[in-house]
Amino acid sequence: MERIERIREFGGWLERYRHDSETCHCPMTFSVYLPPQAESGPVPAVYFLSGLTCTDDNVRVKAGAQRYAAELGLALVMPDTSPRGETVSDAPDRYDLGQGAGFYVNASRPPWATHYRMFDYANLELPALVERALPLRPGRRSITGHSMGGHGALISALRNPGLYRSVSAFAPICNPVACGWGQGCLGAYLGDDPAAWKEWDATELIRAGATPLPLLIDQGTDDEFLAEGQLRPEALSRICAERDVPLTLRMQPGYDHSYHFIATFIGEHLAYHARALADMP
Amino acid sequence: MERIERIREFGGWLERYRHDSETCHCPMTFSVYLPPQAESGPVPAVYFLSGLTCTDDNVRVKAGAQRYAAELGLALVMPDTSPRGETVSDAPDRYDLGQGAGFYVNASRPPWATHYRMFDYANLELPALVERALPLRPGRRSITGHSMGGHGALISALRNPGLYRSVSAFAPICNPVACGWGQGCLGAYLGDDPAAWKEWDATELIRAGATPLPLLIDQGTDDEFLAEGQLRPEALSRICAERDVPLTLRMQPGYDHSYHFIATFIGEHLAYHARALADMP
Repeated sequence: MERIERIREFGGWLERYRHDSETCHCPMTFSVYLPPQAESGPVPAVYFLSGLTCTDDNVRVKAGAQRYAAELGLALVMPDTSPRGETVSDAPDRYDLGQGAGFYVNASRPPWATHYRMFDYANLELPALVERALPLRPGRRSITGHSMGGHGALISALRNPGLYRSVSAFAPICNPVACGWGQGCLGAYLGDDPAAWKEWDATELIRAGATPLPLLIDQGTDDEFLAEGQLRPEALSRICAERDVPLTLRMQPGYDHSYHFIATFIGEHLAYHARALADMP
Repeated sequence: MERIERIREFGGWLERYRHDSETCHCPMTFSVYLPPQAESGPVPAVYFLSGLTCTDDNVRVKAGAQRYAAELGLALVMPDTSPRGETVSDAPDRYDLGQGAGFYVNASRPPWATHYRMFDYANLELPALVERALPLRPGRRSITGHSMGGHGALISALRNPGLYRSVSAFAPICNPVACGWGQGCLGAYLGDDPAAWKEWDATELIRAGATPLPLLIDQGTDDEFLAEGQLRPEALSRICAERDVPLTLRMQPGYDHSYHFIATFIGEHLAYHARALADMP
């Protein structure tokens, strides 16, 4: 992998890398924040999966997360939201399909199946790569994300028991099989049979018996996409109650879907992950 | 003035307003962050003047300042960097002249003199407006800024003794009469005679006898514009030493000119201003 940017921030380094992905069969770009503590030894990492239309840049510029990461001694790993490039299939007239909208699944249908394998990329290839090349403690990972990336964080933890110490999400798409964004992407990437979509849906995975880590979710009550029915925390909440899955769903009064909402609560999420990532007593 | 946006953040409100400016003779847009403390009574305000190419949006999205403002009970007032609109003169092929580059002076030359009066706008019209309409404590103001806006903050404090309780700057243009950015803007807005420029130059104002508040400045050592000679903190430092002006110039090793640099130190600046803005014992 090649380092293409390095910026000093909060006593640590905000870095950006490009590498040829074996999973996505194209060059991929990601960012990492290494806190000051990484100078003296490997640190745990929190993965942040971003939402529709984002690259790795949005969260590092807008979320204010690096400050807390520096205080807590956490690295942040910030992948892109899809494969990209001229050779990668796209839906250029759509913001919610194709490039910028990988939906953190492994696509099975042409033309998407060649490159759109963001689930394996974010959960397998990228962690292995950064733990080999950077001062990150092997296997010491937690995961969070926003909107489409909140969905990605939830299904990553649900489908990979033991891979993450903790999971949280900001305004996640909780039940993609039942919303427009999810139906559009899952239909394109996985085909017309909704049965196949359920393996990539947090609510449906729990309905089918997955027993996840405790889930921490913040959701703004004035989020336009909540009103539109894209997020459906109520569906996740219902199935968690039925199956005795520990869910902390905090409805935050007056907050919207923006990074101002994320910035407000990212410190609490990172502190939550830092506790889970600490050495056991 | 008309409120055009309102976003919940850190328990307070990030708001954007548009109004017809009597000073700039055009509609102007600005943002304000009101911390939670403003719900129970007027709060002091820190004005943040932004750099070349910015609008009021950059700092509110990228600097991470609202978190500290909420903790400290400070409002943030974030003006635009110039008048804007189809009727406003511009140099569309230049990022460093015209719209987005008001340089916080009152222009005296056509065609700029009609609208480009950012000094009076930021120091007189805007504070009077927001203190009348919003829960801000009258006259309880400090000022800071970045790059061109750092220059703006310094000359605002130097030319208006008593108007601000404290002043600081991030990578300010310290001596614009002697750098390319300054010469370009001051020459256009004020005419060809460099003698007129000196009234809008922090270093030259101190050379001419201004006795300012203590100055707090952070400057990254890896700032590309420092290397280019646009910022000239050494000139300001020299004249402050000669004239016994209290200057704290912190050269921050490895930091660049970006908002990642601002984000790293904005908390310390806001704490500094909060101390100056507190009621006297």
